Amino acid sequence: MSGYFTEDNSVDAVNGRVGNEASPRVQKVMTSLVHHLHDFVKDVELTQQEWELAIDFLTRTGKTCTDTRQEYILLSDVLGLSMLVDAIGNRRPAGATENTVLGPFYVANAPIRDMGDSISLDGKGESCLFEGRVIDLDGNPVQGAMVDVWSDNADGFYDVQQPELQPKWNNRGRFLTGADGSYGFVGIKPVSYPIPDDGPVGELLAALHRHPYRPAHMHFLVTAPGHQKIVTHIFTGDDVYLGSDAVFGVKSSLIANFEHIGGKTGWRASFNFVMVPEDPSRLTASDGPIS
Amino acid sequence: MSGYFTEDNSVDAVNGRVGNEASPRVQKVMTSLVHHLHDFVKDVELTQQEWELAIDFLTRTGKTCTDTRQEYILLSDVLGLSMLVDAIGNRRPAGATENTVLGPFYVANAPIRDMGDSISLDGKGESCLFEGRVIDLDGNPVQGAMVDVWSDNADGFYDVQQPELQPKWNNRGRFLTGADGSYGFVGIKPVSYPIPDDGPVGELLAALHRHPYRPAHMHFLVTAPGHQKIVTHIFTGDDVYLGSDAVFGVKSSLIANFEHIGGKTGWRASFNFVMVPEDPSRLTASDGPIS
Repeated sequence: MSGYFTEDNSVDAVNGRVGNEASPRVQKVMTSLVHHLHDFVKDVELTQQEWELAIDFLTRTGKTCTDTRQEYILLSDVLGLSMLVDAIGNRRPAGATENTVLGPFYVANAPIRDMGDSISLDGKGESCLFEGRVIDLDGNPVQGAMVDVWSDNADGFYDVQQPELQPKWNNRGRFLTGADGSYGFVGIKPVSYPIPDDGPVGELLAALHRHPYRPAHMHFLVTAPGHQKIVTHIFTGDDVYLGSDAVFGVKSSLIANFEHIGGKTGWRASFNFVMVPEDPSRLTASDGPIS
Repeated sequence: MSGYFTEDNSVDAVNGRVGNEASPRVQKVMTSLVHHLHDFVKDVELTQQEWELAIDFLTRTGKTCTDTRQEYILLSDVLGLSMLVDAIGNRRPAGATENTVLGPFYVANAPIRDMGDSISLDGKGESCLFEGRVIDLDGNPVQGAMVDVWSDNADGFYDVQQPELQPKWNNRGRFLTGADGSYGFVGIKPVSYPIPDDGPVGELLAALHRHPYRPAHMHFLVTAPGHQKIVTHIFTGDDVYLGSDAVFGVKSSLIANFEHIGGKTGWRASFNFVMVPEDPSRLTASDGPIS
């Protein structure tokens, strides 16, 4: 037994090299990663040529990232990894509003608007009244909840994707709940759109014969003192991509009732957000921080 | 059963989306990758914060790559993945010379030199005669084998790392075997050196409390018509890093006999390369090409 690397002992050869002084969490995460990556390479008997393709793909994915585009988050999204990390980190009791991905287009500190105001500043799209309540698991209203909302415009682009074409803060706003926990604002009935598919992630989707579309949704980030943050969307029920979201963000419980009511306000979407108390135990990681 | 993504069905949700029209090999590789990556995330219950660290790490690794530095290959190397792919792709019968990693410093088309010539052009280091034979599994000489060799200089750098400081093609050369299959050239007794550790891979090694050193070795690329290419090193047996090569390249069979013989030629290293016939079945991938 030489202890040198072989195909059979590859996992132990690599993981045996980790120093005892490394943090317990680093040891746990990295030895598991090595184990699973080696199992993958062995399962498919990855060829040298495929390895070279992978090196090139990963390199170009990094080089595609800019201040306004994060291709690695996009890669994580289309492989279902972003949703998986979110699901593990936000297990909630039945009845509580479920999380979904934040997405790359969130911008902090949107204008705080008055209840009933419109967030649609470009006059495009079908007008839609969004309304509901922020409550706790017992149905009691949550006062002082900040409801932070954002969506694409009727052309399928967020304001930050079209800084020259859309008004700043178009289809974005924050609303603070009062004593009854209710919220309401006017936006547009959102539309489906493709994730950026002109880079390496687009190549991957093409190789997998998958489309790049996300079904229509309105983003919500709901925060309130003493409660777990909710990062979620509500989806229209009539979207052709509802069953094939490119980033796997759809959950049954997040499909809202979009009702056509006619008149100047063409649509009404009703959705209640059910918050759960902040769990103090979640503030401490059992193995300590990773770094 | 909605078919939407959940923590439990995450692998099926993602892999079920792959189109039937995707190539069988793409389907096999990517569904296995998703399976193993999801298992990893579940095993360690990767946190949102750790996921953000990973996104940042992968992005910076891509941005560190240049025309002369490939940080993703380095990452693959230190995780043992390069050696694993090489091992799977080059399983050979007992007695045949084993492969190891090519490394990032190979340069094609080095000068073809006469047998016995020196490849050391900078006058540094301890002189060493390298000699042996290229033979087949039956011990017959392989005539017309090209023996392509390269090493660092006595300061621990390859010529391409120091284009201003070292003569071009320093410690590189190609030698063509004659009827008896023998080769011989003068180089230096190689020295250990660190892989580049001032980038993201260096950060990872530090977090794992691993050192960045490779034990001293001479690279060989041996090719001959009708035979499998050998990509390998020979190692000195006296290196302090022999048991902890940062890229896991050491194999027992590749530790050569470096003999101190004194005089102008201070050392002699003897090693025979045993080639195996090219296997025509390896020219066809069973599932077709990946792209």
